[in-house]
Amino acid sequence: MFDSRSSVDPAPPATLLHTVAIDLGERSYPILIGHGLLDDPQTWGGLPRASTAVVVSNEIVAPLYAARLRAALAPHYARVLEVVLPDGEATKDWATLNRIFDALLAHGCDRKTVLLALGGGVVGDMTGFAAACYMRGVPFVQVPTTLLAQVDSSVGGKTAINHPLGKNMIGAFYQPVRVVCDLAALATLPEREYCAGLAEVIKYGPIHDTVFLDWIEAHIEALRSREPAIVAHAVRRSCEIKAAVVGQDERESGLRAILNFGHTFGHAIEAGLGYGQWLHGEAVGCGMVMAAVLSQRLGLVSPAYVERLTRLVAAAGLPTRAPVLAPDNAARYLSLMRVDKKAEAGEIRFVVVDERGQAYLRAVPDAVVAEVIEACAAGGGDTDAGTLRV
Amino acid sequence: MFDSRSSVDPAPPATLLHTVAIDLGERSYPILIGHGLLDDPQTWGGLPRASTAVVVSNEIVAPLYAARLRAALAPHYARVLEVVLPDGEATKDWATLNRIFDALLAHGCDRKTVLLALGGGVVGDMTGFAAACYMRGVPFVQVPTTLLAQVDSSVGGKTAINHPLGKNMIGAFYQPVRVVCDLAALATLPEREYCAGLAEVIKYGPIHDTVFLDWIEAHIEALRSREPAIVAHAVRRSCEIKAAVVGQDERESGLRAILNFGHTFGHAIEAGLGYGQWLHGEAVGCGMVMAAVLSQRLGLVSPAYVERLTRLVAAAGLPTRAPVLAPDNAARYLSLMRVDKKAEAGEIRFVVVDERGQAYLRAVPDAVVAEVIEACAAGGGDTDAGTLRV
Repeated sequence: MFDSRSSVDPAPPATLLHTVAIDLGERSYPILIGHGLLDDPQTWGGLPRASTAVVVSNEIVAPLYAARLRAALAPHYARVLEVVLPDGEATKDWATLNRIFDALLAHGCDRKTVLLALGGGVVGDMTGFAAACYMRGVPFVQVPTTLLAQVDSSVGGKTAINHPLGKNMIGAFYQPVRVVCDLAALATLPEREYCAGLAEVIKYGPIHDTVFLDWIEAHIEALRSREPAIVAHAVRRSCEIKAAVVGQDERESGLRAILNFGHTFGHAIEAGLGYGQWLHGEAVGCGMVMAAVLSQRLGLVSPAYVERLTRLVAAAGLPTRAPVLAPDNAARYLSLMRVDKKAEAGEIRFVVVDERGQAYLRAVPDAVVAEVIEACAAGGGDTDAGTLRV
Repeated sequence: MFDSRSSVDPAPPATLLHTVAIDLGERSYPILIGHGLLDDPQTWGGLPRASTAVVVSNEIVAPLYAARLRAALAPHYARVLEVVLPDGEATKDWATLNRIFDALLAHGCDRKTVLLALGGGVVGDMTGFAAACYMRGVPFVQVPTTLLAQVDSSVGGKTAINHPLGKNMIGAFYQPVRVVCDLAALATLPEREYCAGLAEVIKYGPIHDTVFLDWIEAHIEALRSREPAIVAHAVRRSCEIKAAVVGQDERESGLRAILNFGHTFGHAIEAGLGYGQWLHGEAVGCGMVMAAVLSQRLGLVSPAYVERLTRLVAAAGLPTRAPVLAPDNAARYLSLMRVDKKAEAGEIRFVVVDERGQAYLRAVPDAVVAEVIEACAAGGGDTDAGTLRV
């Protein structure tokens, strides 16, 4: 008898490579890292019981993975719904968030409903914040499909939307019940987005682990060409460092702020150009160079260190020259940075680093910051290195 | 020498009558109950250190108390700002919430900024939710000026805004750092609002404390006329019961739901008539009568108990007859109740009581609920008792 199944290629078995634990007491959860996890029903066992799961994704990612994720969830839930959001940082606002609430309420979702964030940082931030607020809190799972989300934004429970006056100003610390990093999903990631993710990988070196920084430098070409074993190690080590930091300071009362290396400058770039002009990772890449220059001005690192980090950021395919913000560049940067969440009593605080892989939070006089901004400005000197590919 | 101060009446000294502790581990806080607390700088000592405090109030309460509260806060903060919101449940939405965020960002408020909610339940719910979300969480203080807020909504950390498809659907469990109940503020409360607050006082009897229910019954006239010692006891005992319940179940995974006695019917009334038509307490008053009728149908209480509770609700100046909701009354109630946060998998769960002061969460067949709704409907029988004063 002819067995019709023999003509069908079986899906390759899923491979779980690493499990990284986030230790936060009763809010602890695992990060699963592997190939093909998304398609495997086994990945989705043991989540909180509910009648309904809702996959929240965007118009780019949903056509690629939503049906497959829904099929893998089907054995576990009576109903698997889907909410598709528009794509991009510019849509990370209340109106878009409200589309999730509208869908949940229209479908009678109760407060046991499990949300799954399938996509990058924007989908993760919005789905997480929606989960934090819907009926005062429902469980959610992060299913990051971008490198940036796998190594950074999906881990640690920061959720938020933007406000016209500042990025991530409205949000919550709200932990997922699980993070599933399917490395296979990175295959479909456009080059520009993939490189943006490398910025957050690089970040973990200067702030915490010089050995990892050396390793990234040695493997930057292999990382650029997405060699599976190299990418797997980068994701794992990034998650381990993030887990260690978040485990000590869940709500960013101190230590956790070091994860924002390059982000104070980066947020000003994003806000100053208009959200979505530069990708978050691009702004952070350039912001890390600016933060390194600032660290040098404060006597923490040598010019050679700044040059080394600048070369690495450029080799990752990221911009290293700061855009000039109208109307008055440095003053505009300073005014945008003053609403940064790390600012206190109007004093901007920067994450700076030394050459031993230690990071510090420092208030810096405006005049010094202004010098750094002008020194890093595009067109202000060596313009061939790391100009933005767009 | 003439002392100009001698002609000025000194403010009567503030009297702290009771302190009720909410025991929630690291999120524990005290409820201070007394006369004149709002005006006394001592009341505001020992709060989290910050450069800025922001009093959030509404257009009714702000002219009465905001200047006095700001004066009492002035010794503790370099800057005391004020945000005045429109009044009423109909404004408990995202647009109004966003006015708080706009003000905080426009004034460069950082994540140490302390918010103070000066007003009733709507101001408390919105200020608390704003505090939960602003920069992922800033400290806040509840300064309830209505009876309802003092005995119920300001205590326990439930914060939320409404969604067109349901009341309090978007929110957070977020505890204040202190609750200050100034009984003197009740003097300016309009009769209708004061009576609405009595609904939440009455609630604590059936669900938890028959001795307190007897006491309320014996003192309902003194409560109506706002005798200070009687009001003080009612506020204290209500807060004690709420503290005991919340201390055991902060996030309403079980027990805490009993505090919603009368609220499932009540929310349907509010949503069905349009938010703001009936006050929340009025809807809860009527909802408690409906829940008592339901308890009777389930064999938990006698007809005499239902009659007793109905008389008490009426004596508190509250409606006891349910409004008929277009187009199909019971079906409309059921559809509105199905999105209640206590519903699970489409099953509405009601808080019902027995005569020993015990409450239970029960799923009830739609047909039984529909009978109760029709039996309680205005115009469906004894219409002279407890018609709504408007």
